[in-house]
Amino acid sequence: MLIVQKYGGTSVGGLDRIENVANRVAKSKREGNSLVVVVSAMSGETNKLVEYASHFSKTPAKAEMDMLLSSGERVTAALLAIALQEMGVDAVAMTGRQAGIKTDGNHTFARIESIDTTAMKSALDGGKVVVVAGFQGISQKGQVTTLGRGGSDLSAVAIAGALKANACEIYSDVDGIYTTDPRIEPKAKKMNYISYDEMLELASLGAKVLQNRSVELAKKLNVRIVAKSSFSNASGTIIEKEIKEMEAVLVSGIALDRNQARVTVREVSDRPGIAAEIFTLLAKEQINVDMIIQNASTDGTTNLGFTVPESEVERAKEVISAFDHDIGGMDFDENVCKVSVVGVGMKSHSGVAAKAFSAMASNNINIEMISTSEIKVSMVINEKYGELAVRTLHDAYELDK
Amino acid sequence: MLIVQKYGGTSVGGLDRIENVANRVAKSKREGNSLVVVVSAMSGETNKLVEYASHFSKTPAKAEMDMLLSSGERVTAALLAIALQEMGVDAVAMTGRQAGIKTDGNHTFARIESIDTTAMKSALDGGKVVVVAGFQGISQKGQVTTLGRGGSDLSAVAIAGALKANACEIYSDVDGIYTTDPRIEPKAKKMNYISYDEMLELASLGAKVLQNRSVELAKKLNVRIVAKSSFSNASGTIIEKEIKEMEAVLVSGIALDRNQARVTVREVSDRPGIAAEIFTLLAKEQINVDMIIQNASTDGTTNLGFTVPESEVERAKEVISAFDHDIGGMDFDENVCKVSVVGVGMKSHSGVAAKAFSAMASNNINIEMISTSEIKVSMVINEKYGELAVRTLHDAYELDK
Repeated sequence: MLIVQKYGGTSVGGLDRIENVANRVAKSKREGNSLVVVVSAMSGETNKLVEYASHFSKTPAKAEMDMLLSSGERVTAALLAIALQEMGVDAVAMTGRQAGIKTDGNHTFARIESIDTTAMKSALDGGKVVVVAGFQGISQKGQVTTLGRGGSDLSAVAIAGALKANACEIYSDVDGIYTTDPRIEPKAKKMNYISYDEMLELASLGAKVLQNRSVELAKKLNVRIVAKSSFSNASGTIIEKEIKEMEAVLVSGIALDRNQARVTVREVSDRPGIAAEIFTLLAKEQINVDMIIQNASTDGTTNLGFTVPESEVERAKEVISAFDHDIGGMDFDENVCKVSVVGVGMKSHSGVAAKAFSAMASNNINIEMISTSEIKVSMVINEKYGELAVRTLHDAYELDK
Repeated sequence: MLIVQKYGGTSVGGLDRIENVANRVAKSKREGNSLVVVVSAMSGETNKLVEYASHFSKTPAKAEMDMLLSSGERVTAALLAIALQEMGVDAVAMTGRQAGIKTDGNHTFARIESIDTTAMKSALDGGKVVVVAGFQGISQKGQVTTLGRGGSDLSAVAIAGALKANACEIYSDVDGIYTTDPRIEPKAKKMNYISYDEMLELASLGAKVLQNRSVELAKKLNVRIVAKSSFSNASGTIIEKEIKEMEAVLVSGIALDRNQARVTVREVSDRPGIAAEIFTLLAKEQINVDMIIQNASTDGTTNLGFTVPESEVERAKEVISAFDHDIGGMDFDENVCKVSVVGVGMKSHSGVAAKAFSAMASNNINIEMISTSEIKVSMVINEKYGELAVRTLHDAYELDK
């Protein structure tokens, strides 16, 4: 099998850990696999470099930041290749450029445009393990670019897609995707499978592990991801295309997002376009609006509700103040959180939302806002009930079974 | 003027020092100069990375070492460019590859083959300061290469040659080339000028500051080097083509090399080719033979004397043992040092060597071996007299005047 493995910062966060990774790679190679291994910078390195830059400037030029930040992954890639060679595993280290990763010129947040797999394929054909510095590529102008936070996952998924690899194993310090955060609900179970869409919902709703951009890319390229731990031999969670069996599962996971604030704009005059104006201005200020609720107007005015990340509340206030002649006032509540139920099974089953609402009601948890999509139900509630809500819903859908 | 500046590891060995370098660069730019600035890794970084690699392997693959070691210079280059931009100086950072530095494929000790100056020239034409990561280039195969110890000096000199710069300023923590080591002879004087050839002799005879490869390249490309300190405003020493005034100076400097051992091969049978055989074998074992003395034979055998670095004595012993049927025996003396008098003026003056020998004699310093070239006189003496010899010679040629 041709497998792309990716090891994150904590998995390579020290020389002993790199040695551990080398052992895992060597084992997989001995089992007969062809391997491309994508690595992040050693944990802490990227932050150190960012601090260095911030010593000189609050707004360092992005091209120079890319040259700076891309160095950490190169160090790890070279060291891992050296460790593998010492174990007798033929290995070669490649920078993003050498691995053929071509991006647009959007420095610090570049998009992979294409991958010229010639060098990687030739090394793989020669029986070598290819170790690639993640997070980076090269622009048409020949400048080093980086892919933004979580960029090494993107590198790995893109390479797996380009090489048509059998799987893309993403290693971190957790051993898979859980039905909910085990620190909140100890009965949380690791899932064996989850669909791209469910993973996307869970990730955007607060589950860490995998970032949305990588899951989106995996979905687009049809790359099977396996989320695993580099510190154990547990089997991990497979993230792949939705298959029939997945739909049999009504709900796959519960997510909690504490970093939410609720904004209510009262008595918005019911002239056309005002909501559009408000949200356009919020978008211009790069405020991430999440749930938006507007009820039908009864008296010529309406209340407009939405949520934003807590850290963006102040800026949201400023934006909305500009509309004071068109609105009755505004309320903000930072003591809220969002709890969400996710599952592709919802598409073909009814009553999922109703079960959530009655579970909340039976625990006297008041639901302030509701938003649903094809495969999720999200509820905004008082922050203090967040963990109780997670456990309640986990029980209600019998996710520990 | 178009000036290439190079700042070594101690000059950029911390964020404050990089800030200091940025100030110096900004000042030179304000004075109307066009600037290319070549930087080393922050001091300690390269050694740290070498240690990392040695954790995994005693003989790490050279291509991977190059990827590893080239990262430090990139960090410095990016940070310096960011610091300059913050001061309002338009600057761009380039890796060796981006600066167009093409080398052969001899990893960890690559030779610069050509420099494509297109990118640098275009940036310079746009009024930008070009900050280049030193010590590195790219091979024809597209792999990162490094140039070996002192490689950033080489980068700077080669760039200065390719751009036909007016000068290549090499900054370190000493403010120029001295008539001898000031720690040995406090009366040592900084030279204003020194010729390439004298500098080559002094460097190979133990003076640090500049490495031979860079001086040789500067001579070949006719690049005027200015050795300066980044911690002071002293004027430094200019290293350039020999000019008439230089010849007026009889002796320009005294060098001491403590890392020497004397080897005497006794009663070498006088058949043709035996010396050649011995030295060929020593060369094959990469033992650096320095001075070689053989006297005319009187009784059918001769004594062969030469010096090697102290660290290579044991290996030299092994090599010579192979000849035990052709030689009477061998002696080794590690308690020797080599003191040398260097000056282009010697070419046109006689009596320089005689003055050295009598100065030594008047201090009862016994000379064990003598070797002369057109512009130097080297003497091997007992190590304990090394510093006394330096001071004696410094006085004899009135170098403090």
